[in-house]
Amino acid sequence: MQGPIEQFSAILGKQYVLIEDQDKAPYLTDWRKRFTGKALAVLLPKSTEEVASIVKLCSANNIGIVPQGGHTGFCGGATPDNSGKQVILNLKRMNQIYEIDSANQTITLEAGCILQAVQEKAAAQDFLFPLSLGAEGSCMIGGNLATNAGGTNVLRYGNTRDLCLGLEVVTAQGEIWNGMKGLRKDNTGYDLRDLFIGSEGTLGIITAAVMKLYPLPSSQWTTLVATDNIASTIALLNLFQKRATALLTGFEMMTQESLALNEKHFPQMANPLKGNPPYTVLIELSDHESEEHVRKLLERILEEAFEAKLISDAVIASNLSQANAFWHMREHITLAQAEEGANLKHDITIPLSFLDRFIRETDALMRQQFPGIRIINFGHLGDGNLHYNIAPPLGSDPKAFNLAHEKAIHDLVYGQVERCQGSISAEHGVGQLKLDDLRAHKGEVAHELMKTLKRALDPQNILNPRKVVSI
Amino acid sequence: MQGPIEQFSAILGKQYVLIEDQDKAPYLTDWRKRFTGKALAVLLPKSTEEVASIVKLCSANNIGIVPQGGHTGFCGGATPDNSGKQVILNLKRMNQIYEIDSANQTITLEAGCILQAVQEKAAAQDFLFPLSLGAEGSCMIGGNLATNAGGTNVLRYGNTRDLCLGLEVVTAQGEIWNGMKGLRKDNTGYDLRDLFIGSEGTLGIITAAVMKLYPLPSSQWTTLVATDNIASTIALLNLFQKRATALLTGFEMMTQESLALNEKHFPQMANPLKGNPPYTVLIELSDHESEEHVRKLLERILEEAFEAKLISDAVIASNLSQANAFWHMREHITLAQAEEGANLKHDITIPLSFLDRFIRETDALMRQQFPGIRIINFGHLGDGNLHYNIAPPLGSDPKAFNLAHEKAIHDLVYGQVERCQGSISAEHGVGQLKLDDLRAHKGEVAHELMKTLKRALDPQNILNPRKVVSI
Repeated sequence: MQGPIEQFSAILGKQYVLIEDQDKAPYLTDWRKRFTGKALAVLLPKSTEEVASIVKLCSANNIGIVPQGGHTGFCGGATPDNSGKQVILNLKRMNQIYEIDSANQTITLEAGCILQAVQEKAAAQDFLFPLSLGAEGSCMIGGNLATNAGGTNVLRYGNTRDLCLGLEVVTAQGEIWNGMKGLRKDNTGYDLRDLFIGSEGTLGIITAAVMKLYPLPSSQWTTLVATDNIASTIALLNLFQKRATALLTGFEMMTQESLALNEKHFPQMANPLKGNPPYTVLIELSDHESEEHVRKLLERILEEAFEAKLISDAVIASNLSQANAFWHMREHITLAQAEEGANLKHDITIPLSFLDRFIRETDALMRQQFPGIRIINFGHLGDGNLHYNIAPPLGSDPKAFNLAHEKAIHDLVYGQVERCQGSISAEHGVGQLKLDDLRAHKGEVAHELMKTLKRALDPQNILNPRKVVSI
Repeated sequence: MQGPIEQFSAILGKQYVLIEDQDKAPYLTDWRKRFTGKALAVLLPKSTEEVASIVKLCSANNIGIVPQGGHTGFCGGATPDNSGKQVILNLKRMNQIYEIDSANQTITLEAGCILQAVQEKAAAQDFLFPLSLGAEGSCMIGGNLATNAGGTNVLRYGNTRDLCLGLEVVTAQGEIWNGMKGLRKDNTGYDLRDLFIGSEGTLGIITAAVMKLYPLPSSQWTTLVATDNIASTIALLNLFQKRATALLTGFEMMTQESLALNEKHFPQMANPLKGNPPYTVLIELSDHESEEHVRKLLERILEEAFEAKLISDAVIASNLSQANAFWHMREHITLAQAEEGANLKHDITIPLSFLDRFIRETDALMRQQFPGIRIINFGHLGDGNLHYNIAPPLGSDPKAFNLAHEKAIHDLVYGQVERCQGSISAEHGVGQLKLDDLRAHKGEVAHELMKTLKRALDPQNILNPRKVVSI
């Protein structure tokens, strides 16, 4: 009788079953280098039928499957465990864009398409595929769907979930569910689509999708403004929501400490706003009418914000390259943190009405309990999404500091999140990183419901075991 | 030992347990009068805790529960069966609006709130609650969520699902899941919220919700335009999507035959467009800037449409009352059909790229196979949602005609829907009406997944049995 490796090879062809250590290595460690696992093999299928055959084979042999796309996740959701008995199913060879349907404004594609390739393909036909995030050059649409990825355009266009109309999924039994419809309305039974989206490969393997497209904006205006406190920043957001409504496509907040770290590692990223303000906000408006229309609208709203004393300074990008520079400032904070060394990340959401309280209280508790720490707080404020990250005190050893305080710091932040009715994972998901925190966060009833669903759809527990929920 | 009626009374108080025939009668027949059932009792709880106690009691006694809101659904989803052993759980007494959170732009409320009351409460604080549909004066938010209701604003704001951020649900075991969060981003595990939304009370009973609000538009402009065919109508939609994008809040299509029926029963509803055009399209733009801005934009787009020969005539409403008259024209088609007598309704979605083919082919087949029938086709064309309804030939007996041809007509329409990759229920749901059609429409894999979910979450099959999916 053949062993599983031979059987995988019979399905995929030998060259797409990686079993040598040096071939497997690139697939075994997550992007943040927090998790490294082992794998029996890395499998590279080319079609949905191959995925289905692999799943059936794994089911028959009780082999755990870790689905993987670009492997850029922050929570170790696509990294295998240490048993060496799991297989990684990487979908990168399934990278066909099947069709752009102009009248229906949809794009139909395989799970292994790289996000940026999808954006570019859409743009070439005058459409916007709105999903946009730091990893877009390497993350894949299947992973975006599996984790319900967020990013900078959620404020206007929603999360990946909101951009998806149809899915194809291989179930834990190796059946293929063809739900590839491009419909805006479809009330025919349970919402299977949204159950698979965000389930991080634990309920089924997403192999293809139909995604929404939008008309490409004809002009965008980007501005940086200075605010003194979170209350004004939220009032400013509400003002923009009221005046610019759907034209508001970006509202990102950066604290003084975040930009100081940026400037330390990337001196060319200096804040063009004077006086080192407590909060710097990047605001982007996108328009389909005319450059003049959106510029005047932006100027009118900024004027109103000045008069209401919500902002103390503003710089409007005078051209595309300055606008890009503003966005780079925002995006480089993560890189500056990486340069600075180990830090503790919290990807959280807080309802906007609690955000001021959350930041004031949490900052104070943090500085009181961990003197000298640096709070690198920035994020998609328009969505209530903070990346509330903690860097150790200057001069301390980051690894030793984190080892000593990681749990206490997480507990402090997550305790505050609970008090403010927030979420401990806004856009990065659960993976293995937050598996243990999830039970308390969701509460017993929700956690039991999740376990019931996992048991029902994957009773053998072969799909990405011990990610999201443990049964 | 007490019987169930005494136990219900002990939980709710005797006056909220209706057992007399004349008291139960109003809850037993659906709005379209297609389904009449019997019930052991009609239960009127006041709180989530009471709902949970009722469910526990029903579980212990194996009593089927039919959750009910305004009971305005079109598919018999809230009407009990004929056994007389089920109870109706009507949530109308749970009608508190708890809070409008202005900074967070959310409204928190109980399931029994009437939709129109929610719209009005929001408007009083300068917010738009976008869900809008014919039954809004009596339908309830819990029913809207349970059926994922659509309506006229889906084009811009999505279905009820898209408007919901948080839910409270009583499970089949009588546990209360508190998922009442007002967050735009929350990736903490499986999407329980969307699983309950649209499940028509078969997986859990929705008792409260947190819904999104939007800034109230400051001005709206409504126009009626004449088109010659569906291809032009879709090109016109795409033009409006490109030029007006998020300002486009309504795009409704009415055929010549639909408006002829309207005029027959409501002569005051005459089409203000000249020459009795094949298709009349109602277009609404909503703006937050100024009346002048939106009026000019509308005029510019119409001019472009005239030049491209997409439209042959246009009338812009000169004031609010004329705009309302245009909308009434659209809304009265359903009433005109009711006046005309029994007819066969199909609430379907077709991808926009297939819509022209669908209508041409289906119209031709229909007229060929059923000479003299009248095709009352109208709907939310912007969403690809047609109400493709069939009235019997003039002079024939409607009941006899329907009895003889109902199945053949449904089969013809649904067969065409399958060929065009559409949905057999766009916004009305499944209920008991489409239960038998669903299996073939979804395909075996999806249908088995649905049954697996139903069995997992409601193994006793006490929540709205034999609606949506039968186990």
